Amino acid sequence: MDPEAGTVTTYGLFGGLFARGGAARAVQDDAWVRAMLDVEVALAGASADAGRCSPEVARRIERAAAALVLDPADLGRKSAQGAGNPVPALVRALTEAVDDGTPQGRDAAGHVHRGATSQDVIDTATCLVTARALPSTLEDLRGAADRCAELASRHRNTPIIGRTLLQQAVPTTFGLKAASWMCGLDEARAQLGQTARETSRLQLGGAVGTLSGLGDDGLAVHRAMARRLGLGEPVVPWHTVRVAPALLVGAIGAVGTVVAKIALDVSLLAQTEVGEAWEAPKGGRGGSSTMPHKRNPVAAVTAAACAARIPGLVGTVLSAGVHEHERAAGSWHAGWEPLEDLLRLSGSAAAWIRESLESLEVDPSRMADNIELTNGLVLAEAVTTALAGHLGRLRAHDLVTEACRRAVAGRTDLRSVLADTPQVVDAIGPAGIAEALDPAAHLGTAGAFVDRALAAHRELA
Amino acid sequence: MDPEAGTVTTYGLFGGLFARGGAARAVQDDAWVRAMLDVEVALAGASADAGRCSPEVARRIERAAAALVLDPADLGRKSAQGAGNPVPALVRALTEAVDDGTPQGRDAAGHVHRGATSQDVIDTATCLVTARALPSTLEDLRGAADRCAELASRHRNTPIIGRTLLQQAVPTTFGLKAASWMCGLDEARAQLGQTARETSRLQLGGAVGTLSGLGDDGLAVHRAMARRLGLGEPVVPWHTVRVAPALLVGAIGAVGTVVAKIALDVSLLAQTEVGEAWEAPKGGRGGSSTMPHKRNPVAAVTAAACAARIPGLVGTVLSAGVHEHERAAGSWHAGWEPLEDLLRLSGSAAAWIRESLESLEVDPSRMADNIELTNGLVLAEAVTTALAGHLGRLRAHDLVTEACRRAVAGRTDLRSVLADTPQVVDAIGPAGIAEALDPAAHLGTAGAFVDRALAAHRELA
Amino acid sequence: MDPEAGTVTTYGLFGGLFARGGAARAVQDDAWVRAMLDVEVALAGASADAGRCSPEVARRIERAAAALVLDPADLGRKSAQGAGNPVPALVRALTEAVDDGTPQGRDAAGHVHRGATSQDVIDTATCLVTARALPSTLEDLRGAADRCAELASRHRNTPIIGRTLLQQAVPTTFGLKAASWMCGLDEARAQLGQTARETSRLQLGGAVGTLSGLGDDGLAVHRAMARRLGLGEPVVPWHTVRVAPALLVGAIGAVGTVVAKIALDVSLLAQTEVGEAWEAPKGGRGGSSTMPHKRNPVAAVTAAACAARIPGLVGTVLSAGVHEHERAAGSWHAGWEPLEDLLRLSGSAAAWIRESLESLEVDPSRMADNIELTNGLVLAEAVTTALAGHLGRLRAHDLVTEACRRAVAGRTDLRSVLADTPQVVDAIGPAGIAEALDPAAHLGTAGAFVDRALAAHRELA
Amino acid sequence: MDPEAGTVTTYGLFGGLFARGGAARAVQDDAWVRAMLDVEVALAGASADAGRCSPEVARRIERAAAALVLDPADLGRKSAQGAGNPVPALVRALTEAVDDGTPQGRDAAGHVHRGATSQDVIDTATCLVTARALPSTLEDLRGAADRCAELASRHRNTPIIGRTLLQQAVPTTFGLKAASWMCGLDEARAQLGQTARETSRLQLGGAVGTLSGLGDDGLAVHRAMARRLGLGEPVVPWHTVRVAPALLVGAIGAVGTVVAKIALDVSLLAQTEVGEAWEAPKGGRGGSSTMPHKRNPVAAVTAAACAARIPGLVGTVLSAGVHEHERAAGSWHAGWEPLEDLLRLSGSAAAWIRESLESLEVDPSRMADNIELTNGLVLAEAVTTALAGHLGRLRAHDLVTEACRRAVAGRTDLRSVLADTPQVVDAIGPAGIAEALDPAAHLGTAGAFVDRALAAHRELA
Repeated sequence: MDPEAGTVTTYGLFGGLFARGGAARAVQDDAWVRAMLDVEVALAGASADAGRCSPEVARRIERAAAALVLDPADLGRKSAQGAGNPVPALVRALTEAVDDGTPQGRDAAGHVHRGATSQDVIDTATCLVTARALPSTLEDLRGAADRCAELASRHRNTPIIGRTLLQQAVPTTFGLKAASWMCGLDEARAQLGQTARETSRLQLGGAVGTLSGLGDDGLAVHRAMARRLGLGEPVVPWHTVRVAPALLVGAIGAVGTVVAKIALDVSLLAQTEVGEAWEAPKGGRGGSSTMPHKRNPVAAVTAAACAARIPGLVGTVLSAGVHEHERAAGSWHAGWEPLEDLLRLSGSAAAWIRESLESLEVDPSRMADNIELTNGLVLAEAVTTALAGHLGRLRAHDLVTEACRRAVAGRTDLRSVLADTPQVVDAIGPAGIAEALDPAAHLGTAGAFVDRALAAHRELA
Repeated sequence: MDPEAGTVTTYGLFGGLFARGGAARAVQDDAWVRAMLDVEVALAGASADAGRCSPEVARRIERAAAALVLDPADLGRKSAQGAGNPVPALVRALTEAVDDGTPQGRDAAGHVHRGATSQDVIDTATCLVTARALPSTLEDLRGAADRCAELASRHRNTPIIGRTLLQQAVPTTFGLKAASWMCGLDEARAQLGQTARETSRLQLGGAVGTLSGLGDDGLAVHRAMARRLGLGEPVVPWHTVRVAPALLVGAIGAVGTVVAKIALDVSLLAQTEVGEAWEAPKGGRGGSSTMPHKRNPVAAVTAAACAARIPGLVGTVLSAGVHEHERAAGSWHAGWEPLEDLLRLSGSAAAWIRESLESLEVDPSRMADNIELTNGLVLAEAVTTALAGHLGRLRAHDLVTEACRRAVAGRTDLRSVLADTPQVVDAIGPAGIAEALDPAAHLGTAGAFVDRALAAHRELA
Repeated sequence: MDPEAGTVTTYGLFGGLFARGGAARAVQDDAWVRAMLDVEVALAGASADAGRCSPEVARRIERAAAALVLDPADLGRKSAQGAGNPVPALVRALTEAVDDGTPQGRDAAGHVHRGATSQDVIDTATCLVTARALPSTLEDLRGAADRCAELASRHRNTPIIGRTLLQQAVPTTFGLKAASWMCGLDEARAQLGQTARETSRLQLGGAVGTLSGLGDDGLAVHRAMARRLGLGEPVVPWHTVRVAPALLVGAIGAVGTVVAKIALDVSLLAQTEVGEAWEAPKGGRGGSSTMPHKRNPVAAVTAAACAARIPGLVGTVLSAGVHEHERAAGSWHAGWEPLEDLLRLSGSAAAWIRESLESLEVDPSRMADNIELTNGLVLAEAVTTALAGHLGRLRAHDLVTEACRRAVAGRTDLRSVLADTPQVVDAIGPAGIAEALDPAAHLGTAGAFVDRALAAHRELA
Repeated sequence: MDPEAGTVTTYGLFGGLFARGGAARAVQDDAWVRAMLDVEVALAGASADAGRCSPEVARRIERAAAALVLDPADLGRKSAQGAGNPVPALVRALTEAVDDGTPQGRDAAGHVHRGATSQDVIDTATCLVTARALPSTLEDLRGAADRCAELASRHRNTPIIGRTLLQQAVPTTFGLKAASWMCGLDEARAQLGQTARETSRLQLGGAVGTLSGLGDDGLAVHRAMARRLGLGEPVVPWHTVRVAPALLVGAIGAVGTVVAKIALDVSLLAQTEVGEAWEAPKGGRGGSSTMPHKRNPVAAVTAAACAARIPGLVGTVLSAGVHEHERAAGSWHAGWEPLEDLLRLSGSAAAWIRESLESLEVDPSRMADNIELTNGLVLAEAVTTALAGHLGRLRAHDLVTEACRRAVAGRTDLRSVLADTPQVVDAIGPAGIAEALDPAAHLGTAGAFVDRALAAHRELA
């Protein structure tokens, strides 16, 4: 995959960073206009299916819609001059396009938008836009997880120091770290996919949700329209009961969280003082001719930036889900751009984190060096455990604590101090000391966790 | 059900309002302490299951934990003096309680918390607390939906004006309104239940997620502990990959959105000028001796207040899901109280909205009166449609527009104006006019939507 | 003022609604590019001021910048391919433009961006963009407040029922309502203006904030550059200590809150069942040919929609203000678009609420009618007070409570019931009853509050 | 100051961490109850001042209030049973306490709460609670800034590597870092103090804001009550125009941002691999007997956790500032606990960051070592600059780039490579190389920035 392909959008100055993934293209103005026209076409088709108009009428509307080129900014301006949403202007333009002056054209024109209201069009179009935007996001998440799988597999047994509160704690493996990222990506992706499927549904209710404009054919048109659009059919119109969008943005929120976590870890691993992994410079990115030592993790940083904007927008969409009666006095409109932003930003976050991971270079020897930074102190507890079997836990603990103190005071390593401590040597011998201080001997279940994570990933993919 | 039962909590001044549901009781400090002890007991039991200690050791720990009374505020203080979380003090207290001075006691004490880290205890306890808090919330949501079902069924055919942008539009039924609420409640409830089941999972990883303190028994203890606690077993520890909490709060967010929507509708319906539904005064609530005309929708207002706090907290939990390496430097802690708040507030919101709905009195005659407020203008379009079959759409539209203009100008009703318009009388006759202006004749699919909503509700419940 | 003028922006489908005010034009991509070039020009000028280059060098850079036409989308693409921000590409383009092949051109080219880093350019440009965007927002807020002043003045004594929890309570005046809106607008505007002035400051620090690239001239360039740009000079560079943006968005948040409050009140007053005020239809906006009774408060609804998006974005900017060391690994980037969104949305909200208020039509007779809706019950307490002087509070209370009960039961008005109650007539006589039930007699300090509010407004403006 | 003193609160399990500062004590239930009683006392006093009752009446109310002990939880329960807020139960209790059975007592009882409404009491009490909570927060912020001043002064010339995107960039000083923190703390503190003063104002409006219950004395009581409480007197009641709370939480948001920034820097500096600064272990905190190498920055971590919860709550308070008409149907209530949480959490954040900074130990030699980590590469640009004067910029750049490449490839330091490069030695000699590679020679304006920051701090304090 060429991630650069993700950048061809109409977004401008900040779009290279925040409109990167395929989702960004799918939520642009022209995609919205297309989706709204698709809704009108499906409505006409469904009306024909239900016998409310002839198939020819529906075909005329479809043909006119296919040929119609609308300027989104013009629709935007007319929104502001008129009803407060772009649908009336779009319907007028479509109606005029259908009415080609012939009697059949005029007749067909009379069927445009028949029975629907503006909110039906925008809400259903939102589902279409969402359905079209998410696949590339899901694909980027899958790609990122695949790369984690590769890293987890290759580094199943590569020791790295575990860090808690940013302090070195005890060793884990880079494989388990990558496997954890992968599991998070997989769960967020699976849930987003499922939620999207479950919440992607027709909205058709007419003026107030009764489909009163469709006479006795309401249910038939409703069913046919959902089928034509490939959307779920809701039990009742959901125009002002916004559980579906709330669930969708919740799932997007989870994607943001896991992407941000990985991005943060990459940035931390790439620190000059840590240097255990970094993004391979690509073209001019990340490197610096004037600062040759810098390896800026640009992709991870940008992924983090995209993801950092998600929680606030999730809150906004949830707040904006509280609608008055049969159409909201502001909340409905308030949710349009934030949902678009969420689709775009989660898509960008996914694209960037995939790129970050795919470019990630890993340095196991630096990981090994860093484990040694404390001169063995990170494995002091392992020594205690080894000694406890021979000397009792309390005495073992005291001996090791004292040895640590001496190691720190003398700026020497724990190994030498222990080797100079007769009680320790007597108890476990040089081999016991060596084993206790070998990171690879203290990785617990890390390998087994990696194995089952990889199995789960294969099953999902 | 006695909703007052929901108020017996230790919460104080504002707790009557914001700690109302059963969830509030389940997230209090003592419940947290109990859950943390349960985690320690399950760990000991699982260790025995895996053969790492004798069943007697586990029993001793279980007995000591059962008898242990801890002061949460004391643990809180020690958090601040020590490691920054309450687990070490709890473990110390439990260890001392297990160590009864006998050799067996001392031995058992050595097994307390063995292999686990503080985060294991808090994260797993969080899942227990959540699992204990949600049932009453789900039950209140079910009760609220049941009440909506009752209202939807009883008022299947009760006309009410549909309102868009808070303006009267065309009629719908109160039954469909209630059915829409019900569907929203049911979907939010079902999803919250499912997400809770799927995300309720053991966290056990030891210091950095490798279970290195459990030797070769890591997986066995992991499996047994999950089973003992009735929690799911994750593929890998999830201590710093917070997809599960993110998904959980997303589902809570959806609950908040639908509760707030219903509460808003109730408040709007209860307006003095609308008066179509109101909460029956109960004890002193809602009524006012000095303002005898007031029927304050206190339950709906409070439900709205609880729900209004949810989006911001959801955003906080999502933001706080971004954890450094193997333990976060702040984000982990930042998520504790917000999740507790979310459980408490969603529970309160559910309890209040249930109470609001259960006390709701509905006035169909006022609904009918309100439809007449505009002297028939809300059905002007229906007249147009009726005339269009006889006179063509355009001419019908012009006639009706002119009739509306005259009705408004003369402050008379549309019916009389139409009856005075020969072209209209000629076309559809007095009976046609009457039918066109009969709200009940323009309810479209409302009844059918109600029927299938009720069927879906029965299926879910 | 022609509010339509606010719509000429490059924003698209949703821009008519959400990019309405003058601020929207001032935060477009071209404005950002212009501001960034202004920063580079000021840097060159300041370098000349400090004697680091000749005035001619600065003039060459200024001329080249003035003539330079850059495609924001191209800069955006290069951001993604390069350093993760648009400045390097802009600097390269400017440098090439300055270097006209002559030795002087080459020399001047060497001075472009000298001593600065990308963050200096973007942060300072952000201050310029903000300073250019806010005046029209402030002007719209002032216009809205002026209109409130007009309404407050004209309706100083117009009774309207006060509503608490959406229930009719006791009378107030529409003038006081408008004066309250006005005071809120004025306070939010004054604070936003002040905060903007105080937080609008140069950022110039070079790579890490030391201005090490400017030798001994750091402070001199710093001072001269702030002066040239009309920005405040900070004590130290603030690149990663983001108090200023935090304060700015806090002030924007207050604007959103007051705009949303007014918009909500307008929507509620415009309800068909209330009908006390509404936006005069303008062109096709708000009216509906098929629903002639509707007077959609489109401007208020859109103002509310704009404002509803502000709190989440404020939270995002606050969160994104937490920067690592000398340049953030994501948080810096995360704040760019949200601040732009906040400027745009607060500007749109201000423009829409001004338009809503300027088009507001008020119906005092409907207000009077609505006070009568409860048949006098809203003034029951006034009757009690009047009686209390004669009969004692307790007895007065009992008499009035009973009278209210009978009025409600008999669907008659309180006036008649009181007139039929001998004890009441004996105590205060028909004139006393009439006075007690006259809304205008119970307006307390409303008029005085209006007067001092108007005085304060005049003082501010 | 003994920071432990901050922990004596009634908060429980998580209160040690999140209810640490003095603000936590000042926002507890009993403080709310006290503040509400203070409001009632001041109202009575102001009524006496205005001649509406005798001073004796006011004294009786004051005495009764002083002696009254109320159970907040009981008030909370009654809130839920009654009007939805705790004031009516408090007023009833106070009235009963005033009414001691004597005629004077009964008379005085009749004056309790006269003219006020519940919202007056809660809103004014909120201002009192805020005014009582903030001083200790401001004091902790001042203490933290003072400590930064100390650090800035002591380390004015201590080189530390500047880090951008978490990569080593070029040197700065630890003094400038501390000075930047200090300036941020000072600005946030000053603004919070000022905003608190400006927004701390009486709310007294009676039922709907007209003070109709106070006859002709409305303004006089209003003025006297503000004076008695030491609060500002607003031009008009602000019960449903919530600009003041919005501004207050905006200022709190800025405090959170700067505290979080410092906390993050401390955690990053304390990383095992960086080790340039750390919190001195205190008692058991931060250290670990089983992990002797760990120096957990517990105070910084907890400060970060407190601060991380602020942005979401700010958004909630802003959203909850949108009130319907003369009393909100939910939004008012929704803001109570979030504001309390904000006061508590900002206070805790301030207390923790002060403690973190006061315990901070700094290791200049480790800072120096870290600058050397890249073997001189971080100063490559300085070499280029030094050479450019002799060889021209382009040639200098090429030479240094090549030298860097060789240094990296050979895992040697840049100094040796340069010393082996005749063109370099010829140009600037060994002394020139040494100077170019001396961090202390490249600190630009750092020292001057520190000096003026310290001057500004002294001026503020």
